[in-house]
Amino acid sequence: MLSHQSIYSLMIKNISDESVRENGYDLRICGDKYYEVTGEIIIPDKKASLKEHQFKDYAEMEPLKTYLFETCEEIEMPNDTAGLMTLRSTLARNGFLTPPTVIDAGYKGKITIALTSLNKAKIKKESRVIHLIFIKLDKPTEMLYNGSYQGGKII
Amino acid sequence: MLSHQSIYSLMIKNISDESVRENGYDLRICGDKYYEVTGEIIIPDKKASLKEHQFKDYAEMEPLKTYLFETCEEIEMPNDTAGLMTLRSTLARNGFLTPPTVIDAGYKGKITIALTSLNKAKIKKESRVIHLIFIKLDKPTEMLYNGSYQGGKII
Amino acid sequence: MLSHQSIYSLMIKNISDESVRENGYDLRICGDKYYEVTGEIIIPDKKASLKEHQFKDYAEMEPLKTYLFETCEEIEMPNDTAGLMTLRSTLARNGFLTPPTVIDAGYKGKITIALTSLNKAKIKKESRVIHLIFIKLDKPTEMLYNGSYQGGKII
Repeated sequence: MLSHQSIYSLMIKNISDESVRENGYDLRICGDKYYEVTGEIIIPDKKASLKEHQFKDYAEMEPLKTYLFETCEEIEMPNDTAGLMTLRSTLARNGFLTPPTVIDAGYKGKITIALTSLNKAKIKKESRVIHLIFIKLDKPTEMLYNGSYQGGKII
Repeated sequence: MLSHQSIYSLMIKNISDESVRENGYDLRICGDKYYEVTGEIIIPDKKASLKEHQFKDYAEMEPLKTYLFETCEEIEMPNDTAGLMTLRSTLARNGFLTPPTVIDAGYKGKITIALTSLNKAKIKKESRVIHLIFIKLDKPTEMLYNGSYQGGKII
Repeated sequence: MLSHQSIYSLMIKNISDESVRENGYDLRICGDKYYEVTGEIIIPDKKASLKEHQFKDYAEMEPLKTYLFETCEEIEMPNDTAGLMTLRSTLARNGFLTPPTVIDAGYKGKITIALTSLNKAKIKKESRVIHLIFIKLDKPTEMLYNGSYQGGKII
């Protein structure tokens, strides 16, 4: 796992020094909009309907709904490193949930964050919410990320 | 973490080439049945009651319930490698949740997947849902997995 | 990731041999009290209200609420190792949720566990609930944990 000082060797646009932690990077939420995940979903045939909300100072979250946010940061993942998205301990203690997800080697762009609260909640813009850790691959991958979310597409 | 090409050195029965990703393997769901987790639970004395559902083309998921699925794949974990089960980004963006769980060194068999949706959802049989990453141990473990789920027991 | 035998080299107070697994350590819940996360939350301005419950033999969990527990164990994380908190497979199969969270290099004290059940549930005191895995950093971090939870503060 990359240590504090090794994280500075990564390409992170809009990096915040306060976000470079002991052994990870705290991703912040930005964007003009955030998105509520609604509707019936059929995997793989039918995606969720996204209900757009204006993101001014605070995002408002109803309990037990999933919201999608884009990060302030843009990241260029090297071909020999993957990222694992974990929840900041502060949010875990306050009843938020996020599933564990991976940012693949070769991914470039903003990250989409999926966040759920069990209670009524607000989150201020530019708050640090996701603790991203970086894990080296045993060797550079021979399959770089080239999927449909490349560049930061939400859904 | 194992890279794309290193994953091919693992023993994965019913492997799908499409599932071998940049730095992980996408587990698919199979089986004649899937299971809804119900009833009052007492840890460690009383397990959940499992309500069986026939798994034809699609599994139907009510919001805020946990369902258990078995994977199409059978895996033989080496004695120097563990697996970490994460959620495919596509499912995270569509309001699904799964907790982070580990597949221990020495585990053999199908994997049991626990999945929750915040919205009404269907999942097609053989869909890729869990993104499994593999992390090397510092040395071969002196305690190989020999627990009660060995071989793929659901609960 | 640390193997079974390497875990014994860590400083874990109140260690239980039964908890030293193939490639991780199962954290147990203790304490005279456990805490229900309630109230409206504003990140970063307003934390949750914690409703205290006496923790005698069993903790009682209502569905879809988050509860905070303290561990029996106290851990001293080295400056070159971080911990990743995952859910024991048994709890995942019984409809519990926890988000992935990290214990940073340099953290010392009891760990706070955030746990949610989708069903009505009870957990016996000293049950093993969280599977903690340990991952080495590429080099000792130049920023040791010195945050507000140091020593085991709940929230």
